[in-house]
Amino acid sequence: MDFASDNSSGASPQVLQAVLAANAGYAAPYGVDDWTRAAQERLSDVFERDCVMFLVATGSASNALALAALTPPWGAIFCHHDAHVMGDECGAPEFYTAGAKLVGVDGSDGKIDPAALRATLAAFPRGLVKQVQPAALSLSQATESGRLYEPTEIAALTAIAREAGIRTHMDGARFANAVAALAVAPADMTWRAGVDVLSLGASKNGTLACEAVVFFDEALAADMAFRRKRAGHTLSKGRFLGAQMCAWLEDGHWLELARHANAQAAALADGLAQAGARLPWTREANEVFAILPDHADAALQAAGARYYRWSAGRLAPELRPREGEAFVRLVTSFETTPAEVERFVDIVSGAGKG
Amino acid sequence: MDFASDNSSGASPQVLQAVLAANAGYAAPYGVDDWTRAAQERLSDVFERDCVMFLVATGSASNALALAALTPPWGAIFCHHDAHVMGDECGAPEFYTAGAKLVGVDGSDGKIDPAALRATLAAFPRGLVKQVQPAALSLSQATESGRLYEPTEIAALTAIAREAGIRTHMDGARFANAVAALAVAPADMTWRAGVDVLSLGASKNGTLACEAVVFFDEALAADMAFRRKRAGHTLSKGRFLGAQMCAWLEDGHWLELARHANAQAAALADGLAQAGARLPWTREANEVFAILPDHADAALQAAGARYYRWSAGRLAPELRPREGEAFVRLVTSFETTPAEVERFVDIVSGAGKG
Amino acid sequence: MDFASDNSSGASPQVLQAVLAANAGYAAPYGVDDWTRAAQERLSDVFERDCVMFLVATGSASNALALAALTPPWGAIFCHHDAHVMGDECGAPEFYTAGAKLVGVDGSDGKIDPAALRATLAAFPRGLVKQVQPAALSLSQATESGRLYEPTEIAALTAIAREAGIRTHMDGARFANAVAALAVAPADMTWRAGVDVLSLGASKNGTLACEAVVFFDEALAADMAFRRKRAGHTLSKGRFLGAQMCAWLEDGHWLELARHANAQAAALADGLAQAGARLPWTREANEVFAILPDHADAALQAAGARYYRWSAGRLAPELRPREGEAFVRLVTSFETTPAEVERFVDIVSGAGKG
Amino acid sequence: MDFASDNSSGASPQVLQAVLAANAGYAAPYGVDDWTRAAQERLSDVFERDCVMFLVATGSASNALALAALTPPWGAIFCHHDAHVMGDECGAPEFYTAGAKLVGVDGSDGKIDPAALRATLAAFPRGLVKQVQPAALSLSQATESGRLYEPTEIAALTAIAREAGIRTHMDGARFANAVAALAVAPADMTWRAGVDVLSLGASKNGTLACEAVVFFDEALAADMAFRRKRAGHTLSKGRFLGAQMCAWLEDGHWLELARHANAQAAALADGLAQAGARLPWTREANEVFAILPDHADAALQAAGARYYRWSAGRLAPELRPREGEAFVRLVTSFETTPAEVERFVDIVSGAGKG
Repeated sequence: MDFASDNSSGASPQVLQAVLAANAGYAAPYGVDDWTRAAQERLSDVFERDCVMFLVATGSASNALALAALTPPWGAIFCHHDAHVMGDECGAPEFYTAGAKLVGVDGSDGKIDPAALRATLAAFPRGLVKQVQPAALSLSQATESGRLYEPTEIAALTAIAREAGIRTHMDGARFANAVAALAVAPADMTWRAGVDVLSLGASKNGTLACEAVVFFDEALAADMAFRRKRAGHTLSKGRFLGAQMCAWLEDGHWLELARHANAQAAALADGLAQAGARLPWTREANEVFAILPDHADAALQAAGARYYRWSAGRLAPELRPREGEAFVRLVTSFETTPAEVERFVDIVSGAGKG
Repeated sequence: MDFASDNSSGASPQVLQAVLAANAGYAAPYGVDDWTRAAQERLSDVFERDCVMFLVATGSASNALALAALTPPWGAIFCHHDAHVMGDECGAPEFYTAGAKLVGVDGSDGKIDPAALRATLAAFPRGLVKQVQPAALSLSQATESGRLYEPTEIAALTAIAREAGIRTHMDGARFANAVAALAVAPADMTWRAGVDVLSLGASKNGTLACEAVVFFDEALAADMAFRRKRAGHTLSKGRFLGAQMCAWLEDGHWLELARHANAQAAALADGLAQAGARLPWTREANEVFAILPDHADAALQAAGARYYRWSAGRLAPELRPREGEAFVRLVTSFETTPAEVERFVDIVSGAGKG
Repeated sequence: MDFASDNSSGASPQVLQAVLAANAGYAAPYGVDDWTRAAQERLSDVFERDCVMFLVATGSASNALALAALTPPWGAIFCHHDAHVMGDECGAPEFYTAGAKLVGVDGSDGKIDPAALRATLAAFPRGLVKQVQPAALSLSQATESGRLYEPTEIAALTAIAREAGIRTHMDGARFANAVAALAVAPADMTWRAGVDVLSLGASKNGTLACEAVVFFDEALAADMAFRRKRAGHTLSKGRFLGAQMCAWLEDGHWLELARHANAQAAALADGLAQAGARLPWTREANEVFAILPDHADAALQAAGARYYRWSAGRLAPELRPREGEAFVRLVTSFETTPAEVERFVDIVSGAGKG
Repeated sequence: MDFASDNSSGASPQVLQAVLAANAGYAAPYGVDDWTRAAQERLSDVFERDCVMFLVATGSASNALALAALTPPWGAIFCHHDAHVMGDECGAPEFYTAGAKLVGVDGSDGKIDPAALRATLAAFPRGLVKQVQPAALSLSQATESGRLYEPTEIAALTAIAREAGIRTHMDGARFANAVAALAVAPADMTWRAGVDVLSLGASKNGTLACEAVVFFDEALAADMAFRRKRAGHTLSKGRFLGAQMCAWLEDGHWLELARHANAQAAALADGLAQAGARLPWTREANEVFAILPDHADAALQAAGARYYRWSAGRLAPELRPREGEAFVRLVTSFETTPAEVERFVDIVSGAGKG
C-alpha cells in the first residue's frame, strides 16, 4: 500500500526487457546510437511531426534544461505558485538559467488562471530595464493538484504568452496520465495548442530513469547539446536511455501503463468519497487528494500505508481540513493493484465506522 | 573490434541482474532506499573507513559536483593540461562552480609533475585579490595518457596541495583499472595518500549508468545533497543506482572486470609492439596509445575496427608520429575478447608485412 | 519641481569639494588609500563599533554583494514582496548569488509582518532537499512605501530570523533618512537590533556615486574582497570613494542632508493633505505617496513637475485610487527647495479649486 | 616618484571641472541624461561612425560585460596568456559569462601570434559537444607588456577570428596611449580593423572612474542594458559618468593626456637605457619594463620611488634578469612630471656608478 509517489514503483517489465536486449554488443556512446535514433522517430510518430528530443535521467534536469533554452539570465519564468519547478527542485531552474526569476501566478487547482497570467505579465513591461524580462510560461500537466488542462485551456494560455512574446514550456512529469485521462492526441495537448517545449516524463510511469526534452521548434534546440553536456546529463551509454524510451512508447505501452494508474486512482477516489472522505480537488489523473478523519489516518499508518500529508495552505480556505482531519495526497502508479486500493478504502471505511 | 571507448560496451550481466532484482515492489525514492544504503556500506568496506557517497548517472556530473564542493566561484582548480575536466566536459566544472578557473599544470604522460605544481601554485598567491584563489587539486587516475600514479606519487602531490591549503579531488573514471593494475588497496590510492574526494567511475567498467562521488572528509559533503538535487542529478528511483553499485562492488566484481580489461590491453600492447608499432606512453591500465603506419590504419578501418585518432600535440616532440603514421588510442573493456585483440594485432602485423 | 527620485539630484557641494581635495598627488589604487581608511574609521565611530566596510558605486551592487555573502546558490532570501531587491534590480541578487531564490513576504506599508515571516519560513524546512534553504532576511529601511521600522520592530524580525538560523541584511538605500526621521542611533537601528550586514546608501542623499556594504560581523566579510573584485566593483581610484564617504559622514553632514529632505517631504505631505489629497501610507522619511485628482495630475504635468505614477496594486483594496484619480510617488532630496514644495502644493490646491 | 600604476594618479582638472559643472540642477537618473547623450555623440564622432556606448565605473566591468555579450556559458574566449582578463580580474569574465573558459594563446611581448591563434582555434572544433565552443577573441591594446598592435596586425587577427566564426573584443585599458603612440585614427585601430566591441579605458588616463563599452555592431548591444543593470553597474547619477566622458573626449583632451604620459615613458626609457638598464620589451606607450641592478633597485626604494616587481616568467629565457638584477614595471601617467623621470633616472645612474 504505497501511495506516497509514483516514484516508489519500479520499472515496467517490458522496459526492463528492452534494456536487457540493448546490452548486447558495442554501441556508440553519448546518444548517437541506434536506440536513441529509434526513440526519436517513435516520438515524432507519437507527436505527428518532426521534433527534436534530448533524453536525460531526471525530470528536474528535463525541466531545467528546457527552461534554460527559453530564458536569459535576466528572464522571468511564469508558472503556478505550486509548480514543481517553483518549489520542488531546489532551485534547479535558477541554476540552469544562471539566475532567472520564477514568478508565481494564481489559479485554483494548480491551474494558471488566464486573467491572472495577463495581470502578472502586465507587471513585467518589456524593456523596463530595472525588471527581469518576460521569457517563458511553464505549465504543469497534470498540475500539482492533480488537475488537467484541456487542450483549449492550454491554447488560451499559450496565446497570452505568444502575445507577450514569450514561449511556453510544459512540465509533463505526468503527461502520460494526462493524455490517457483526456483521451486526446499528444499533439493536441502540446504543439497544436501552442506548446514549444515539453518535458516528457516517463520515470514516474514505467521507465528506470528516462525523461525526454522534446522541442517542437527546432531552432530552440540549437544549444541544447552543449547545455546537456555541460550539465553532466549526456549519459555515456546512451543506448540504455534510447532503449527505455523506445519500449515505453512502443505500441502505446506508455498509455496502457498510465490508464492503469488512472483507473486505480479513480477507484480510490470513488471508494474514499463513498467512505465519507472529502476530495477538495477533482481526481482526473493518477493523484487523489483527500481529507480524512485523523483516526482513519492513524489506522492507515498503523496498517503500513505510505502517503504524504499535503499542505492545506494550497486549498481555498473553505475547503481546508478542520480540526481532527488530515489532508493527504495519494498517488497511484502502473504497479498499483486493485487489492491495494480496496484495502486502503476498507481501512478508511472501517475507521469511519469505528 | 570496438576499441573506441570503454563506453562502447554495455553493462556486466551481474549488474543487470541486480537491477532486475531491485525492480520488485515499492521503494522510497530519491536515494534513501535499502540498495543505496547497502552500497554505502559496501563502499565503506572497500575503502576501509566510513565515507559519504552520492550516486549519480555520469562521470561529468560526479567530477563537477565534487569540484564544486571544494571550490568557491573565485577559486582555481589545478589539473593537468590534458585532464578530462579541463577539456572534455564542455565546461561542466565552470558551470557547477559558478565560474571557477581550471589552471593547467605541466607533466609528462598526463601526470602532474610535482615541481610544476609547486611553480603553478606559486603564481596564485593567497590573498592577492586580483587573482583567483587556490582551491583544489584534481588528479586523474588513470591519466588521459593511460598512465597511473603510484600511491607515493599521489601522496607527494597531495602534500603540496595541503601545504598550499587546498584539497585534492581524484577523477577516477578508470579507478578500477588503476587499482587492478597497481594491485594496491583502494584506501592506499585515495585517503591514505591524501585524497579528499573521489569521483569513482563505474559506467566505463560494467554499470549501466552509475558513478559515485565519495567523500573521505564528511565535512566536505555538507551541501552535497542540495548541489546534487539542484543539478537534477538526484534520481527518483534511486534504488536502481544503489543496486548497480552494490552488484558492481560485490565480491570484487569491479576488480575482476577491470583486470579483464587490463589484460586485454596488455595483450594488445604487446602484440602491437611486436608488430612494430611504437607505444609512446607505457600501457598500464586499459588504454593503449600507438603510432601505426598509415597503411595499417587503413587496413584496420577497412576491417571495421573502431578507435580514435589522438592528438599528437600531447606527445613530446621526439615521440610524435612522422609522415605516414597515425597516432591512435585503443581502449579495452570488460567485454573485449582475446579474439578481437588477436584480430586487431593480426591486421597490423599483416599490414606491416604488406 | 523634480520629485521623480532622490537620484535626480546631484551631489552635496561638501562632498564634491572633498573629491576635488582628494585629487592632489598620488594615491595607492583599489581601496587601500588613506581616504578609504579614514572613511572606515568614521563609519566605525558612527556605528559605535568596529565594522568592516566595502565601498562600491551603486546600491544594487551593495545589496547584491551583501546578499551573496549570506546566501548559498540554493538559499532562500526572504524580503517584502515590494522590496527593491525583489523587483527593481533586474535580478542582481540572483546573479550575484548564482541563483538563489527571493521569497516574498507579506506585510502592509512595505514592512514585513512578523507573523507572515514566521509562516513563510515555516514553509522552507531546513534539510528538506527538494526546497531551497533559508539563508537570509532582507529588510528595507525605509521601505518601498516610505515607511520606517522602529528598532524594536527590526529586533523582532531579526529574532525570528535568528531562530530560523539565518542572517539579516538591511537595504539602507534611504538609511540616512530613516535615522534622521526616527532620531535613533545608527547602532540601535542595525547591529543592536540584530542586523548583520547593512547596505548603507549615500548616493540618493548627497554623494556622486558611493555606497557602503557594512559588515557588523567580520566573519561574514571574509570573501568580500574577492566577490567585489570579481564583480568589477573595486574602483581603481578608490580614494575618490573614500573621500566621498568621509565628507558625507563628517560632522553629521549625512544626517543634515537627510533632515532637509525629510522636512521637505513633511511640508509636501502636509500641504497635499490640506489640499485634499489622500496619503494612503503615512509619510515618515523623504517619500510621499499621494492620490490626486486627475486634473491636479494634469496641471502638475503641464507645469513641468516630474514624478512617477505608482502601482495601485501595492495598496490595500480599500485605499486604492478611484476613477478619476492618480496614485503618485513624490521623493524629496537634500536639494529640494521649499519653493518647489510650495509651488507643487499650490498647483494641486488650485486644481482642486478649479 | 610613483610609477606603480597610472591608477595612482588622480583625475584631470578639466574632467573634474566638468563633474562640478554637471552638478547643477536635476537630471534624469540611470544614464538617460543629456551628458550621457552628448558623450555618445562625441564618441561616435571620434570613431567616425554610429556606435552604441555603455558607461561603467571600472575596466573589469567593461571587459566582463563586453565579453559576456559575445560568449555563451559554454564558450571559449581566446586571449593572450598574460591578458588582464585572464589573470588580473579575479575571474570577472567567468562570472559575467556564467562560466565561459578563457583560453591562453602564445605570442611574444603580450601580443597574440597569428599562427598560435590559428593553432589554438583548431583545437576547439565547432560542434564537438565535449568541448567549449569558440566564441570570442580578446586583444589587449596596449598589451600587458606595454607593446602595441599595428592596425594591420589587428586586422590579421580579427580575420582569423572571423573565419572561425567568432567576434573580437579589444581591452583598451590604455587605448588612448595606443592611439597617441601610433598616431592612427581610433577607427583604424578598431572597427576598420575588424574589432566588434571595445572596452575603452579612461580611468587610467584622466577620469575619476569612467569607462565605456563601445559596440560597433549594434546588434551585439541588444541585451547590454539588462546585463549592466543586473550587475549593479548602471549608476544612478549617470550624468557624472556622461560628464567625465564628454570632457575627456573634448577637443582631443584624452589624446593630449596620453601623449604626455607616453612622452614621459619615452624619456624614462631613454634615460634608463643610457644608465645601463636593459629594456626587454620595446617601450611604445606609457609602460617601461626594465631590468635594473639590485643596488639601483635598493637606491630607488630608499628614495621612496614606487613601482612593481614584474614576473620574469613572462620574458623569453634569454631576456630574463640574472643574479643581482630586478625586473620592474614603470608606468607613467598624465600627471608624471619630467622632474620625477629625471630624478628616477639619476638615482639609477648614480647607483650604477656607485
